[in-house]
Amino acid sequence: MNHTFKTQPLYDQLVELWKEKIETELEPNAKLPSEREIASRYGVSRTTVRLAFQELEKIGYIYRRHGKGTFASDLSRNTTNLSGSYSFTEQMRETGKKPETKIFEFKVLEANKFFAKQLNVTIGESIYKLKRLRLADGQPMMLERSYLPVKPFISLTREMLEQKPLYDVIEEDFGQKIRIANEEFYASIAGAKDAELLEISEGAPVLHLVRTTYSTKNEIIEYTLSVARADQFRYKISHVRN
Amino acid sequence: MNHTFKTQPLYDQLVELWKEKIETELEPNAKLPSEREIASRYGVSRTTVRLAFQELEKIGYIYRRHGKGTFASDLSRNTTNLSGSYSFTEQMRETGKKPETKIFEFKVLEANKFFAKQLNVTIGESIYKLKRLRLADGQPMMLERSYLPVKPFISLTREMLEQKPLYDVIEEDFGQKIRIANEEFYASIAGAKDAELLEISEGAPVLHLVRTTYSTKNEIIEYTLSVARADQFRYKISHVRN
Repeated sequence: MNHTFKTQPLYDQLVELWKEKIETELEPNAKLPSEREIASRYGVSRTTVRLAFQELEKIGYIYRRHGKGTFASDLSRNTTNLSGSYSFTEQMRETGKKPETKIFEFKVLEANKFFAKQLNVTIGESIYKLKRLRLADGQPMMLERSYLPVKPFISLTREMLEQKPLYDVIEEDFGQKIRIANEEFYASIAGAKDAELLEISEGAPVLHLVRTTYSTKNEIIEYTLSVARADQFRYKISHVRN
Repeated sequence: MNHTFKTQPLYDQLVELWKEKIETELEPNAKLPSEREIASRYGVSRTTVRLAFQELEKIGYIYRRHGKGTFASDLSRNTTNLSGSYSFTEQMRETGKKPETKIFEFKVLEANKFFAKQLNVTIGESIYKLKRLRLADGQPMMLERSYLPVKPFISLTREMLEQKPLYDVIEEDFGQKIRIANEEFYASIAGAKDAELLEISEGAPVLHLVRTTYSTKNEIIEYTLSVARADQFRYKISHVRN
C-alpha cells in the first residue's frame, strides 16, 4: 500500500505515525518532543507539525499544558463499563468525578409520529422535552435530549430536575422503578451547535447514544438522544462465546 | 440558546434542522425535496443547500441515487447486537450480507513493550501482524489490525487466512477454543489512509474497537484494533438495573 504515501500530505503521515505511537508505544501522559524537534527529526516544516498536532488534539490523542508542552492522552481514561450503570450521575461518581447538570430547555410538546412511536403514546399527546448538558468536574461531557410522556409525570417541574437526577425524581417522586434500558450507539461528528456547548471543535468525533428506559411495569419512561465527547467516553464490554 | 443562531452559518442551521427531521420525522429511505426546493423554502442559496447535503451525506444521514434524487438513510440499518457474536463473518451473515476479507499485510514482528503487554509475551518475542479490510456485499466496512503471538500458531500462513475466517483457523487448525472477547470502543474520525481504504471522506466519523480474545485456557489469542465505518455500524445493548 505504499502508493498511499505518495499522495498523502506530509501532515497526514505524521498524524498516522503519532497515532500509532500513542496507541502502541507511549505511556499515558508521556511528554512529546517539541514541534521544533519533530520538524527536524522528520525533515518537515513546523507548520506541518503544528497541523498534525492540531489534528491529534482534535481526536483526543494529545493534550497541551500551557508552558509545559504536549502530552500523550491516557486513551484508557473514563472507560465506562456498559454492563454496569447507565446513569450519568452514577457513572461519574464511579470514576470519582463531580457530576453537574445544566438544564437548557424544559417544555411540553405535542408528540409527532416519531415520538409517539418511541414513547408509546398517541400522536398529539403531551410529552416533555428536556435538554441538558452534563458536566464532570466542570467540563462538558455529554448533551442529552430526553423525551418523556407527560401523563405519568404530570407534576414534573424544572425545579425538581434541578435538585436531583432524573432517575431519582422518577423513583422518589413518582414511585416508578426503572427496570431496563436499551441503548444503541454509533460514532458521529459534532455539528456547530453541539460543538459549542460541548466545548469541542466542529467536526470533532462524538458518540451518539439512543436510549429507551422501561419501568418495572414495562412502560416507557424516557427516550433520550445523547451526544457524548469522544475524547471522554469509551465503552467496555465483555462477551462470552456460545 | 437563540444566540447560537446568530453566529451559526446558514448551512449549519440547515444541517441541524435536517438531522433532526431525519432522526425524528422522516421514514427510512424517504425522498428529500430537491436542492432547488429546499433553497426556495428556506430562502437560502443552492450552494448553501449543497454544502448542507454534503455534510449530511458525510455523516451518513442521507444518500444519493444518480438521477433519482436524495434520500433519508435508514439510521437503524446494520445494527449489531454486541451481546451476540463478535466475529465479523458471523455478524455479516446474520444481517444477510456476503462477507469478504482482503489481506493487506501478514508479517512477523518483534513485540515492543506495548504489544508484549497486550499479548502477554516477552519483549522481542515474535508476533504476527495481520491487516485486513472487511467488506460486506463488496462494500468496505471495517479495517482490522490484528496481532497474535507466533508461538501457539507457528505454522499459520497467509494462505490459511485467505481460505477461511481467522477464528475458524484458530479453532480448526490449531485446536484452540475461543472463550471470551473483551471489547472497548470509542468514536473517532478517519485519517487519510484509513479513509481511502474504507472509501469514506477523510474526517468522516468512524468507530474504533479494541478487542482482546482469550482461549478456554485463558491464553490471549489476539489483540485487534479495528476502524469501522460509522454509517455502517451501530451497537445495541440492553441493561437491567440492579
